[in-house]
Amino acid sequence: MSLVPLCSDLPQFLQGYLPNATKKETSIRPFITLTYAQSLDARISKGPGIRTTISHPETKTMTHYLRYHHDGILIGSGTALIDDPGLNCKWGRDSLANSPRPIILDTKQKWRFGGSKMQELYNKGLGKPPIVVVANDPAIKEHHVEYAICPMDKATKQIDWEKLFEKLKKDFNIQSVMIEGGAKVVNQLLLRNDIINSLIITIGSTFLGRSGTEVSPLQSVNLKGITWWKGTTDVVMCAKLDNE
Amino acid sequence: MSLVPLCSDLPQFLQGYLPNATKKETSIRPFITLTYAQSLDARISKGPGIRTTISHPETKTMTHYLRYHHDGILIGSGTALIDDPGLNCKWGRDSLANSPRPIILDTKQKWRFGGSKMQELYNKGLGKPPIVVVANDPAIKEHHVEYAICPMDKATKQIDWEKLFEKLKKDFNIQSVMIEGGAKVVNQLLLRNDIINSLIITIGSTFLGRSGTEVSPLQSVNLKGITWWKGTTDVVMCAKLDNE
Ligand SMILES: NC(=O)c1ccc[n+]([C@@H]2O[C@H](COP(=O)([O-])OP(=O)(O)OC[C@H]3O[C@@H](n4cnc5c(N)ncnc54)[C@H](OP(=O)(O)O)[C@@H]3O)[C@@H](O)[C@H]2O)c1
Ligand SMILES: NC(=O)c1ccc[n+]([C@@H]2O[C@H](COP(=O)([O-])OP(=O)(O)OC[C@H]3O[C@@H](n4cnc5c(N)ncnc54)[C@H](OP(=O)(O)O)[C@@H]3O)[C@@H](O)[C@H]2O)c1
Repeated sequence: MSLVPLCSDLPQFLQGYLPNATKKETSIRPFITLTYAQSLDARISKGPGIRTTISHPETKTMTHYLRYHHDGILIGSGTALIDDPGLNCKWGRDSLANSPRPIILDTKQKWRFGGSKMQELYNKGLGKPPIVVVANDPAIKEHHVEYAICPMDKATKQIDWEKLFEKLKKDFNIQSVMIEGGAKVVNQLLLRNDIINSLIITIGSTFLGRSGTEVSPLQSVNLKGITWWKGTTDVVMCAKLDNE
Repeated sequence: MSLVPLCSDLPQFLQGYLPNATKKETSIRPFITLTYAQSLDARISKGPGIRTTISHPETKTMTHYLRYHHDGILIGSGTALIDDPGLNCKWGRDSLANSPRPIILDTKQKWRFGGSKMQELYNKGLGKPPIVVVANDPAIKEHHVEYAICPMDKATKQIDWEKLFEKLKKDFNIQSVMIEGGAKVVNQLLLRNDIINSLIITIGSTFLGRSGTEVSPLQSVNLKGITWWKGTTDVVMCAKLDNE
């Protein structure tokens, strides 16, 4: 399935929110973009396992343009297991070179590269193999997969996001990461203005309804540097998380 | 508190979604516009009783411009009790003439006109007195208030929306109604493409967080005739509810 052309005003609209727009990244962490597509009622899917169209083909192309600009693309195990996404980049001429490295947050090792869409794309030379984030040295290691061993926070039994991103930069030379979901990952990171450099949200003009998978952070979040783009049926907002 | 000027491109943007844009209304019901302001995470307030700023002053002015174009403005008892809103129209020169008639859905008669913001505005000649929607002839009748007695649906123990709107047109000569919330009212009416003529949603670029009052209909809802307006920090979507 090929992409529709990129809308001509999108590169300029996105420019200030992309990693290459910043000066030489000296931080110990990569540049991190949080991005997702939601309905008017803040749902990112109709429900677990239900293939959901939220955005117009033109904002789908934008997603691939964003992937083009990042070294890594991170998703939670939920999204990996439910959607089996390819996560490669179809924008530009060379999918293999342009694709970000998939990064799967899967400390319980429920997901397998073997048999996945990601493996299919990798085998065809259309995508890169993933880095799987685990808590301990994994018992089963898959071919072509690299593992990022990242200790859990003892209190929360969750990955420490700062340590994970530092490791991705230090050990895997990942200079920029695009976070593409799902809800559990996004809801946590919306509260992390210390980590997230850019927020890019597509809003599709539909209601997915109350049983959909919802994005809403635990607390309120203010934004700054807000700018909107208007497409045929969608809007896109770029912003920075505020410090308050 | 006075309004900032109306953005010059808003009248044209809204035109196809306002009652006066339609040909002479021959329906037995008024023209009905469903409208509200929400955060990115589809919250219309931070929580019951918490005064919440969602939209930019320029979209607040738009709300008053919408009020100017409607004969009635309906809210649920929840909003009336929690927010004590004025519901008048500050756009244009003559608030009394331009203001829609407040219509309060309050079958249990919890709300009182006496002591309300609405009464204050009415006393100052800046707003009209309300129509209160009740299920039976009310025991207590307030001065200047009119009552729309509207039987409940026996099965759902709720007002029958169709009958209510027919009555508002027939008995009160209300040719157009703007529904301004809150969540319980909006969530029901998002599912009523047989009743709602226009949907106008303002999205403010903030997250109110999970404990906020949420708008999300019980089922998914498709839209058509979608068009977006971009403000300084907000966007506004106009659409029609689809029949599917
Ligand atoms: N519209 C969009 O843009 C978009 C994008 C992506 C996904 N989606 C949708 O989102 C849904 C999936 O969302 P979801 O919330 O169920 O799953 P998710 O966020 O993709 O994954 C959640 C899982 O990731 C792991 N995880 C998250 N945070 C962690 C942390 N701090 N430390 C360690 N592990 C962590 C946990 O895995 P374990 O439980 O295994 O430890 C957690 O259960 C799907 O329906 C998908 O279609 C939509
Ligand atoms: N951002 C915005 O645009 C906006 C606009 C308005 C309100 N709000 C917010 O919304 C919140 C209030 O929302 P809410 O959901 O609690 O209240 P609501 O929708 O304003 O009112 C709900 C009440 O209205 C009555 N009602 C609704 N549907 C009915 C039906 N079919 N038949 C009979 N009665 C019906 C019921 O009253 P009884 O229980 O008394 O029978 C129901 O409890 C407030 O926090 C307010 O700030 C935001």
